[in-house]
Order: sequence, then structure tokens, then C-alpha cells
Amino acid sequence: MHHHMQTIAVAQYGIGPIGAEILRLMLEKPWITVVGAVDNDPGKVGHDVGEVIGLGRLAGITVTPELVGRPEVVCHSTGSHLIAVEPQLRALMERGCHVISTCEELSFPLDAAIRESLQLAARSHGVALLGTGVNPGFVMDKLPLTLSAACQTLTAIDVRRVVNASLRREPLQRKIGAGLSRERFSTAVADGSIRHMGLRESLTMLANGMGLELARIADETVEPVLAQERVLTDFLTVEPGEVAGLRQTMTATSTTGVELRFEIQVYVGAKDPADTIEIHGLPDVSATIRSGIHGDHATAAMVVNAIPRILTARPGLLSMDDIAVGFRE
Amino acid sequence: MHHHMQTIAVAQYGIGPIGAEILRLMLEKPWITVVGAVDNDPGKVGHDVGEVIGLGRLAGITVTPELVGRPEVVCHSTGSHLIAVEPQLRALMERGCHVISTCEELSFPLDAAIRESLQLAARSHGVALLGTGVNPGFVMDKLPLTLSAACQTLTAIDVRRVVNASLRREPLQRKIGAGLSRERFSTAVADGSIRHMGLRESLTMLANGMGLELARIADETVEPVLAQERVLTDFLTVEPGEVAGLRQTMTATSTTGVELRFEIQVYVGAKDPADTIEIHGLPDVSATIRSGIHGDHATAAMVVNAIPRILTARPGLLSMDDIAVGFRE
Repeated sequence: MHHHMQTIAVAQYGIGPIGAEILRLMLEKPWITVVGAVDNDPGKVGHDVGEVIGLGRLAGITVTPELVGRPEVVCHSTGSHLIAVEPQLRALMERGCHVISTCEELSFPLDAAIRESLQLAARSHGVALLGTGVNPGFVMDKLPLTLSAACQTLTAIDVRRVVNASLRREPLQRKIGAGLSRERFSTAVADGSIRHMGLRESLTMLANGMGLELARIADETVEPVLAQERVLTDFLTVEPGEVAGLRQTMTATSTTGVELRFEIQVYVGAKDPADTIEIHGLPDVSATIRSGIHGDHATAAMVVNAIPRILTARPGLLSMDDIAVGFRE
Repeated sequence: MHHHMQTIAVAQYGIGPIGAEILRLMLEKPWITVVGAVDNDPGKVGHDVGEVIGLGRLAGITVTPELVGRPEVVCHSTGSHLIAVEPQLRALMERGCHVISTCEELSFPLDAAIRESLQLAARSHGVALLGTGVNPGFVMDKLPLTLSAACQTLTAIDVRRVVNASLRREPLQRKIGAGLSRERFSTAVADGSIRHMGLRESLTMLANGMGLELARIADETVEPVLAQERVLTDFLTVEPGEVAGLRQTMTATSTTGVELRFEIQVYVGAKDPADTIEIHGLPDVSATIRSGIHGDHATAAMVVNAIPRILTARPGLLSMDDIAVGFRE
């Protein structure tokens, strides 16, 4: 029960592929005024945002290397690792800005000391700090939590995501190991360069939201999905027997015996992409999202749609489980 | 990010079929202490709750005709019409209790004067007042809203619900007209005794949550679903050509052209019960809940799971769009 009579002043911090998509969307929303765009790439600084994100017109906003002024909200998209982006988040909060970030590790910070410290910083500046996205942020945490509200009791939640990477951008296809041999895939998994981030954060958010204490978190497994036939994308070719992408799992059990089981497959040539959430309880709830939720479009949507929602939330470190969400026209 | 170290004192107000189910569930939750149970039925007053709800054991709580003491939260389940239950809700709030009610018309009060007045009452007493349930309250409002958070833009939302009434309790089978002739069904629709309540409330909550102003709400249609073959339930028999239940629709269009289309079919012998939410947007989101969400079990779950959620919400009249929801063990 809220209406916005005046626009919200928002800046974008980080203009990589996701930041650019967020900017494109924000420029379309009548209730947002984009007041700044920050990136440290010398090739972007000093240029108009419209030019930098390929808008086909000038946006009237020049990219700066540091934030100028004090926008009400800053959308932050510079990295996945909290240790790298934490100083940026702190500086934005110190300035008095609410911050919504796509940093995967911010979706539910696992380190209690960092969590407390960010909580303290956000509260002391009277701002909200939210990590969001599709996964982590929605498909494996917010959505199963929301569906679980229909259950009197539950014994297990299975979330299974199959993503067809064929139509996604090249960096994503490379990041999942598409086109590698099994040996090179194993090496890349071992050195941490191939891994979908955020499963543990989703799992912890989900457990926490249901009041569960986790007794045991099984290690993540990361395995190759091998191509059964030749797969061609705009960027690469995968021969039969080569790696088409990854299959990653993580499971946990609560002290009370509730099992949480996550599986994500991201590979080129996936035939039946879908997001499936199976809640075993009273009643059972079994939800399938046909084709799955499109990662690139939906990530920007999650961020922008969260803007009006965090403005009415309590200040502090928020997870997606702390706010109600929805599209905002 | 919340844990309950001590239990929450909750009373049940109204011990009909739904109130009894809520009580049964509350008695199982370790974080709830049931401190009272209210009903005006002389056959229930003075009896132990366990006896009244058929628990098979005493609960140690005696049913009273009026609320005793000041529980932190009261779960209210006495009627569908706001005009009838409003004095009860007000009295509970004046006593300083948070209130969660299954009253369909409370899910999103349509009358602005009543909405304002309830808002004022709740805020002045520092309590939360929430209307919840499965439909209205979840399948046609909270869940589509949550899914829509993945969308950058959207042009339409279709929600379709097919419920098999065969396994539901007798009053529900009667309420949907099962076993009537077409003529008696039409008469019952005309006099308002056959109608699924809450479509307009869901529609308004959904539109409001997305920042849409509705330009036009088409009238509800209520039609019979006719049995194709003989349907037997524990309570009645429907011959081919007789009414098996109802099909009800409601559509609305926003000032910006977004269409919201609801359809609910509730009938005995339904072969493929499911809840389907189709969001036409960027990206499309198409979700199906196989078998649908079970109404009786899930309504009690919605109420009880909302208890810890409203305790951390701001005081005032809340809709399901104002709080994050989830199972609480």
C-alpha cells in the first residue's frame, strides 16, 4: 500500500554487463531518476552513459570514477566476492546511500563477523544494504521460502535448476567450462575458476528463514556435463564427449532432520531448462518454472524492483528474506 | 535473520473448521504457547480445546466466550465479511494484540474508508493487522507478485487455479454447488450464496503491489462446471449434466494497459488440479504448481507461519504484500 509520487534518485556503481543492464532498465522506469554512473575503466570515464551501454542515444549522465553527490539509492555491481567489494559498500553507506548489490556473497554473508560489521555500519548510517540476484537471491532461496509458507510441516526441499547456456553471453559459456576437455575442466574446478557461486549463501538464507539450524552442510560437488552430440553456439563449438557445462550440488541437514538439496546444471545445449522446487511436507508443494527464470534479464529486474521495497524496510543488512518483492512498473 | 528464544503467546479466536486446524498446528509448534481459545458456540464454551478440536488428548486450555488476558498475537477466523468481523478485530487491537485473520475481505480491504480506519486503529495501538489465506492471500496475489520481481517489464498476468473438490470437506462441496441442477445453481449465484470470495481483493493487492492503477475491473463471472460423467464423493453424487462445481473469472486492466486475468475452477472430479501463473513480460515467467496448493492445510499454515513475520513488521494494516513469508519450523 504505497505509491511513489516523486522519483527516486539512483546511481549505478559498476558498469559491466550486469550494471549496463541495470542502467538500461532504470532509464526506462518513470519513478527513477538516474543521477550518476560510476566505473573505474578509463575507457568509460568521461563518456555519456548512453554511449557506454550502447543505448543508441545520450543519457545526459557522464560516467565518473567516483560517486558524486548523495543519491538515495546506489545499485552496485562490481564483483562477486565480499572481501573485494566490502570497502566500496562501506563507503557508499557512509555517504548515506541505501545500497542494492549483485555481489553473490552479500546475498547472505556467511562470516558472522562480517555480517555483524555490515549490520552495524548499515544501521549506524540509517541505510539498507541488500544483496540480490536470481541465484543466489531468488530461485534457490526467496522463492522456495515463499512457497514454504503454505506448509504446516516439512521434511525436505529439493531445488533443481537446469539452465541452457547456449543463448547466454560468451563469458558465461566460458565460465561454466563449455568446450573444455574433462582434464582441463577438473583443473579449473580445482583452482576455483569454474564454480557457480552462491549455493551456500542460498542454503543458509533458506535455513535461517525457516528457523532451522544446520547440523551438516555437505561439500559442494562440481562435475562436468558432457556433450552427447555436437553443440554449436555463437561463440564456441563443443564436440561429443567434451564438456558442455557444469553440474553442481550442495545439500544440508538441519538439527531437526530437514534436508535441503540443491542442484544446478548450466550447460550449452540443455534441452529442457526449468527451475523446479519440490517441498516435501504437509501439504507437498511442487512448483516448476518452465524454461527457468532468465538470468541476465531477471538479475537487473531483481535489483531495480527492490529499490522501492528497501526504502520502506528497516535500516540494516537485509537479505531477500527480509523484504517482500514484486515487479514495479 | 531472527531467532525466537522464547515462545510467543497466541490465542485462537473462532474454532470452526479453519480455527480448529490453526489450533492443531499451533499446538505442534515449539515456539508458540497457546494461551486461549475463544468461541461463542455454547457447545464449545467451557470445554477443553483438545476435546473441541478432536485432538485425542486434553490441551489444558478451556474455550471461553470472550478473550481473556492479552496474548501477543490472536489468530482470528470467524467469518469472510469485513462488516461482520470488524468489531471483533477492533476489540482485539484495542486490547493490544497483533491480529492475523482468515477473513477474505481483510486480505486487501476494498473500501478506502474502512482501510483508513483499520490502518489508524492498528497504528494507534501499535499492532499489526493482517488478512491472509491461500486464496485470497497467496496463490493469486502474493505468489504472482513474488514471481513478478524477476520481470523488467510486463504486459499481462494470468492466474488459473483448478481445484479438485472431491477430497475436500462437505461444506466446501456444497458451497460450490456440487450436485445442483443448472437452474438451482443459477439461482444460488444470483442470490450470492455460491461464489468464491476474494478475487477482487487479490486483484487489487496484485495491482497495488506493482504500482498499477486499475482503469477497469470487469465483472466477475460465475458459471457452473457440468459433470461429464457420474462423480461420487463421500458426501454426494453428481450425475452427468448436473453441476460439479464452479468456474469463476475476473479480469482487470491498468491505466497503462497491463492485463490481470484470474480464473478459478473448483469442482468435484477435477482431473488435473493445478495452480498456474503465467507472467507475460521480459522475461516471461511461467510457473505451475502440480496438484495445486491444498486449501485446508495451507490456510492454517499461512496463518501460523505469518506469526513471527508480523512481529517484526511495522504496526498497521498489513497485506501479504507487506511482509516476507516462509515456513517456520
